[in-house]
Amino acid sequence: MPVKSSLTMKNSAVVLLSGGVDSSTTLAIAKEEGYCLYALTVDYGQRHALELEAAAKVAAQMGVEKHLLVRTDMRGIGGSALTADIDVPKEGIAKGIPATYVPARNTIFLSYALGWAEVLKAPNIFIGANVMDYSGYPDCRPEYLKAFEDMANLATKISVEGKLMFSIKAPLLQLSKADIIRKGLELGLDYSLTWSCYDPAPEGKPCGRCDSCRIRAKGFEEAGAKDPLVE
Amino acid sequence: MPVKSSLTMKNSAVVLLSGGVDSSTTLAIAKEEGYCLYALTVDYGQRHALELEAAAKVAAQMGVEKHLLVRTDMRGIGGSALTADIDVPKEGIAKGIPATYVPARNTIFLSYALGWAEVLKAPNIFIGANVMDYSGYPDCRPEYLKAFEDMANLATKISVEGKLMFSIKAPLLQLSKADIIRKGLELGLDYSLTWSCYDPAPEGKPCGRCDSCRIRAKGFEEAGAKDPLVE
Repeated sequence: MPVKSSLTMKNSAVVLLSGGVDSSTTLAIAKEEGYCLYALTVDYGQRHALELEAAAKVAAQMGVEKHLLVRTDMRGIGGSALTADIDVPKEGIAKGIPATYVPARNTIFLSYALGWAEVLKAPNIFIGANVMDYSGYPDCRPEYLKAFEDMANLATKISVEGKLMFSIKAPLLQLSKADIIRKGLELGLDYSLTWSCYDPAPEGKPCGRCDSCRIRAKGFEEAGAKDPLVE
Repeated sequence: MPVKSSLTMKNSAVVLLSGGVDSSTTLAIAKEEGYCLYALTVDYGQRHALELEAAAKVAAQMGVEKHLLVRTDMRGIGGSALTADIDVPKEGIAKGIPATYVPARNTIFLSYALGWAEVLKAPNIFIGANVMDYSGYPDCRPEYLKAFEDMANLATKISVEGKLMFSIKAPLLQLSKADIIRKGLELGLDYSLTWSCYDPAPEGKPCGRCDSCRIRAKGFEEAGAKDPLVE
């Protein structure tokens, strides 16, 4: 990795990128804000591994400095329809926290982002957390993100030595899915590169029925835009 | 995994187990305290992979309910003598945070433990963090552990729904290495099963010169005991 001046690194950001609508739009926003971009994708043994290819395509479109894929395996931990042998709900969005919730997923992802950010001396960590259209996930709420930031600044050598404080940034936090999509389109993000479906058909088409497909469809509809993934 | 009554699960603990002296003694203490034990070991591409075998042996000796190995790869993140192409210091213990510090390692490990603890409904997470003999690591300090605990209780479905609060337990926090070893011997822990060396020789012998070997040797000496790994 090329050596950067400390001034440049202050403007660097690690962006968690799953390849879905939210994280891809977050990356586009971080780019618009002028950050030098380091995209981090976690392959955690998820059912919808197609999103890993989407992440690589989006990272390339956005011209990131580096795209790091961290491989891990959360299937041993289980407890989620995305990592264990539990059906993905397809009957519509139910109340409460859905079966696709993955225990501690954002905490694990943010922890990797923190480790990389410390190595890069990048003070900014972006995550596409959003409370509006999908309020069920506890690890998408502002109080959680603040607690993670507080913990992060006690966890790292660079912070404890007073050289750098980390900031967790979640620019989508209060946006609706329609607002997110409008913003991404405005920034030139190509949503045909993204992937949302939790449970794709064998031929690699979105199922159209899981929560993630439903939320995506509603978002495009309300944004008055056509989803390039849907024929 | 057998279904347990909620009473039993309240007495369950996820114990982070690297196979070294500290985490193995922590496991022995959790066993003595009567917890039902779930040991979690992370294979993170560390230089000293011998500790993974040690962890399996210690888990077996302690009669854990389950031993889970999570594979990940932190070499892409780098920044440490344990995961990147940086020499392990061997000239004696220097001041400051050593090169063997792995960015965000305890945060990543505790995050996996949290995910598994949520699935198991186990409120206790044990970690062998210790500030006495190795005060350099920021993510071994009590203020860090408290911040992680606060974050954990905002991160998880089970906590947010008010069903369970997580407690991070670090029984070695204020013990010297000699006290830790005395305690482990008292509890019947077989230290010949453990592994400490950061940079073992090809034939699988401790190098005797890295910080971890030095701290272990000093601990055994001060405890008035013989290290079964040293001939």
